[in-house]
Amino acid sequence: MTFGARRRMLPGGWYIPLTGTRLTPLFPSSVSLIPFTSDMPKNSAVKESEVDVLIIGAGPAGVMAALALARNGVNLRIVDQRPNKVPAGQADGIQPRTIEVLQSYGLAERLLKEGNQMHIAAFYNPGPNGDIELTDRVPDVTAPTARYPFEITLHQGAIEAIFMDAMAEMGVKVDRPVAPTSIQISKDEAILSDPKAHAVEVVLINDEGTEVVHAKFVIGADGAHSWVRKTLDIAMEGEQTDYIWGVVDLTPDTDFPDIRNKTVVHSNNGSCMVIPREGDKVRLYIQLDDRQNNFVTSDKRIDKDKVRPQQILEVARKSFNPYSIKMTDEFDWWTIYIIGQRVASQFSVHERVFIAGDACHTHSPKAGQGMNASMNDSHNLAWKLTHVLRGWADISLLKTYEFERKTYAQDLINFDKNFAKLFSGKPRTEDFQDGVSHEEFLRIFQTFGGFTSGIGIRYAESLITNTSHQSLAAKLIIGQRLLPQIFLRAADSRPFHIQDLLPSDGRFKLLIFTGNTADATCRKKIVDVAKELDSMLSRFTTGKISLLFDILAISSATKAAVRYNDLPKMFRSHWSKFVFPLNVNIQPLISEYIRVLIDDTDVRGAQGGDGYRNYGIGPDGAAVVIRPDGYVSMVAPLDAINELDIYFRAFIKTP
Amino acid sequence: MTFGARRRMLPGGWYIPLTGTRLTPLFPSSVSLIPFTSDMPKNSAVKESEVDVLIIGAGPAGVMAALALARNGVNLRIVDQRPNKVPAGQADGIQPRTIEVLQSYGLAERLLKEGNQMHIAAFYNPGPNGDIELTDRVPDVTAPTARYPFEITLHQGAIEAIFMDAMAEMGVKVDRPVAPTSIQISKDEAILSDPKAHAVEVVLINDEGTEVVHAKFVIGADGAHSWVRKTLDIAMEGEQTDYIWGVVDLTPDTDFPDIRNKTVVHSNNGSCMVIPREGDKVRLYIQLDDRQNNFVTSDKRIDKDKVRPQQILEVARKSFNPYSIKMTDEFDWWTIYIIGQRVASQFSVHERVFIAGDACHTHSPKAGQGMNASMNDSHNLAWKLTHVLRGWADISLLKTYEFERKTYAQDLINFDKNFAKLFSGKPRTEDFQDGVSHEEFLRIFQTFGGFTSGIGIRYAESLITNTSHQSLAAKLIIGQRLLPQIFLRAADSRPFHIQDLLPSDGRFKLLIFTGNTADATCRKKIVDVAKELDSMLSRFTTGKISLLFDILAISSATKAAVRYNDLPKMFRSHWSKFVFPLNVNIQPLISEYIRVLIDDTDVRGAQGGDGYRNYGIGPDGAAVVIRPDGYVSMVAPLDAINELDIYFRAFIKTP
Repeated sequence: MTFGARRRMLPGGWYIPLTGTRLTPLFPSSVSLIPFTSDMPKNSAVKESEVDVLIIGAGPAGVMAALALARNGVNLRIVDQRPNKVPAGQADGIQPRTIEVLQSYGLAERLLKEGNQMHIAAFYNPGPNGDIELTDRVPDVTAPTARYPFEITLHQGAIEAIFMDAMAEMGVKVDRPVAPTSIQISKDEAILSDPKAHAVEVVLINDEGTEVVHAKFVIGADGAHSWVRKTLDIAMEGEQTDYIWGVVDLTPDTDFPDIRNKTVVHSNNGSCMVIPREGDKVRLYIQLDDRQNNFVTSDKRIDKDKVRPQQILEVARKSFNPYSIKMTDEFDWWTIYIIGQRVASQFSVHERVFIAGDACHTHSPKAGQGMNASMNDSHNLAWKLTHVLRGWADISLLKTYEFERKTYAQDLINFDKNFAKLFSGKPRTEDFQDGVSHEEFLRIFQTFGGFTSGIGIRYAESLITNTSHQSLAAKLIIGQRLLPQIFLRAADSRPFHIQDLLPSDGRFKLLIFTGNTADATCRKKIVDVAKELDSMLSRFTTGKISLLFDILAISSATKAAVRYNDLPKMFRSHWSKFVFPLNVNIQPLISEYIRVLIDDTDVRGAQGGDGYRNYGIGPDGAAVVIRPDGYVSMVAPLDAINELDIYFRAFIKTP
Repeated sequence: MTFGARRRMLPGGWYIPLTGTRLTPLFPSSVSLIPFTSDMPKNSAVKESEVDVLIIGAGPAGVMAALALARNGVNLRIVDQRPNKVPAGQADGIQPRTIEVLQSYGLAERLLKEGNQMHIAAFYNPGPNGDIELTDRVPDVTAPTARYPFEITLHQGAIEAIFMDAMAEMGVKVDRPVAPTSIQISKDEAILSDPKAHAVEVVLINDEGTEVVHAKFVIGADGAHSWVRKTLDIAMEGEQTDYIWGVVDLTPDTDFPDIRNKTVVHSNNGSCMVIPREGDKVRLYIQLDDRQNNFVTSDKRIDKDKVRPQQILEVARKSFNPYSIKMTDEFDWWTIYIIGQRVASQFSVHERVFIAGDACHTHSPKAGQGMNASMNDSHNLAWKLTHVLRGWADISLLKTYEFERKTYAQDLINFDKNFAKLFSGKPRTEDFQDGVSHEEFLRIFQTFGGFTSGIGIRYAESLITNTSHQSLAAKLIIGQRLLPQIFLRAADSRPFHIQDLLPSDGRFKLLIFTGNTADATCRKKIVDVAKELDSMLSRFTTGKISLLFDILAISSATKAAVRYNDLPKMFRSHWSKFVFPLNVNIQPLISEYIRVLIDDTDVRGAQGGDGYRNYGIGPDGAAVVIRPDGYVSMVAPLDAINELDIYFRAFIKTP
């Protein structure tokens, strides 16, 4: 792929730029859609339509929002101005928490099949003779509770294809090329406060003409140069840095022993990072110095005509001395950029138009956060929109999106500042004692491991995050995602990852840790708990199967002693409207007979067990609420189960 | 499904019986194909055709043979007289070793998705008041090295569908309904000894007429009442027993706590076995007593008109006292049978026509061996046929099929005799001290665990099984399947199950345990080993990629110290014709960069490590030959690698 042709004509006579738009400011001036005034669309019939959610942009944030909403049965539409899917290059790193999230949508299996895995982070530094040498190999993922202890790399097009195919199964397709030309939000307070009102009007244009879409909600997932953000005048706060980086994707012929590890090379000739990719491909991030080349303009933009990928690779080759890196073929993709570190001043306008993904945060790509932050924005937003659109939750629930995700984005920028500075620093050597030492670098790398893996993300106390009974499940941190743990199905002792029983289907999951049901006193108590739960939850929900709640009971009885039918019928699929037979293609529950689990090791003693202890739950049990996105949001004692009622009433309506 | 209509007309005017043909002697007199003389096929044009392998019968043995041969690129045809696939019922248990085998064809993933898993075997016996009570729960699979420590149950039609779909990807479809009417094997010694000769003539008939097929080899996989076996006059040796069993498939409404476990019920009212199936289905095997019913004829056949499934279930219900078992719907399937225990006197005629599966062994179904024995017959035969057909191996290799599989079948019958007797015996109680005690039953159950799981099967010394250097890999028993073990890929420390790197692709796999390649002396030695191996293997193989051999090198270097490119190029995919990039859809090797492994734990210390020790291999390493079907067949010292040459020359030709 060359960058000679920087614009491409849309069928309707519009130009869009052909650049790596997910990497921050490349050609800031040329990126938003450029009307080609002399050649307006020929067929200018104006259509009108209505939709519950209009998603603008089919990058990682857009397709995640579309899939999540479609799975929850929400009426939606997704449009993108690019005529085709992204073929290669761009963002490509999937962090451990994001793999967990994708698994909750049934998408991890294919990702694991197609993607490359990075298990090791290797570090090279100058040796005594100035050549680089291996300093250290450490685990790439340091978060101890990550279910998948590695990062996945795969090009963005392949990742988006996983979503497109899953969306297609739900009958959702990306409309492309379609570009928005105007957006207006109602100023009428009555309309804004009515979740059923089509409060936003967006004008779209494609090669067939113009369409006015009346949407209840709009998600602007249209990238770093977001038209939605700019049109709504949302400022990006932060700054451009001085760091210039080149990126080349290639298939190398090399004698470098860590070419298949995530490798940080600090040499006397510059810094470089190796990211192995699917197949035999490798991405190199290379620090560039403008002094020789003068490719940075006076207003801190890259003059790309002055750069060639061969020049970038040449810099890398020097830093790899004494190892050689040759190309076996052409460059798959390349780009060059100056790191910008910015967060949008607001993530929504009147909780009617939201921005997500690169539209609200830009930062350096080397910590591999971009696509992950984007997908997790949408994952956070989708269930909230669902609950409001269905009339279950009060519209104020939507305020928690900005509350949670903007805080995260700011943390991300702060982290990025530290990391980028360290990364761009010269290595410490005999002659350069002010340089960055390996120990310092490693310390930062590992300190931020919980953050970079996405595992440590913790949402603060809010309407939906109630920490009052944290001590009853001391190690299940309220606001963090549910810790992975293997439990056995009581009826047949088959082991299951608890996360696989909590698909992203829009439901709140109630984990009822019952205590030991082999004990008659416990069984008696649980009968009362079930009765109270049933009548409480029934107040929030109608219909034969609850779309709001799903219950799993987890007994501490052993596999030798348990009788699954000691548990009240409420906890068994055949009998309860609150126990939902999974239909998501994750680790399938072939038999839906019951959803009663036990906390014991499997028959071989190799998996499971110690779940109560790992969660910090005592023998008396507890009720744990998991949000639809997999985050622990509330813990209640079994003898005060009515506290759940108070929790849910704060944002869930009773019909 | 009812058994009222016991015959069904083929389009060409032939009748076939509609019975559970995989359960032994049901209607022995009515099962072979019955020509309906007054209505011969209307279009009697005679076609002639040639094929390398003709498979008669598309049950488990037939489809396994077809898939295996197709994957190895062998020209084949598979025909079946049944107009449709099996819809339900029949055999349904997949043993741990068979799951490993299916995984080697890339089929286990779907099997695991669709099937039910049995982890626990539960035992109920009469309590003091005569009602049954839980005596014990133990692991269902006791073989400690089983990679999958459970059995899978799924109806035969679904299992066959997994094969059909995989075959379809290779362009192979079952021709049906097609019935054979005659088979003739050449008597010319010169033809019989020429693997390229079409030595067998089979006449097939379908609704379009008659076809004469000239085949190099024929596999009779046509079930317990095998037309091939009968036509070639191969005797079944063994006997009919007195045990009468009924089988019902149903979806129960029950308070029995072990309805989702494999459960053996010994009651004072008879014996019963519970096999949970996919969904909420359950199969019950019920011992029947003829004294009340008189449904056994004087020549030891079942008069099925005298039996109804309700009667069988009624017997079961009594044995479940005090638990109740009700039907929620109709019976899915049912049958009744007398156990026969027989093995064919020979498994092939002139190594030109082979019989496989139920065609060569019948026994009781309760140990769940039927489908497994059948598939593993074909798995054993397919690679041997491939090597002979390709001209690589001498035709005498085919003699090892009967040698290995007939021995196994006899062991199976011997086991079955013990097990069926025990199973059919009355439970030991206060009043009946001669009965079978739980302890005795459990001891036999666990003693034979290696056998019933398929894990312990060991092929004896032969042309292809050479135990002379057993001590160099003391715990890799030569003749048994390769022990599961997790190794890391040297280049990126990604863990892999070694079995997943040994797909059933027709190749011999050479595992070169190199010792510690971080040590310079070892590296030097390995360079010499590689040189010798290269020239040795090159004598057997031509072409750019070897279809005969695949090499994996396994270093004992740690993940901290290893450099994958310390290994000679011979062991790296990009460079060697003996290192084959996997293209089988198992656990995919996204990067085929190298196939050098190390014996170390993964980054978290949770998987892998101790491979040399688990295999009983010392620090000096060894070369281990794995047959194309996954069985260890030879071990050689690295300093006498020429012993491999001697081993292969005994049956592999040099071009």
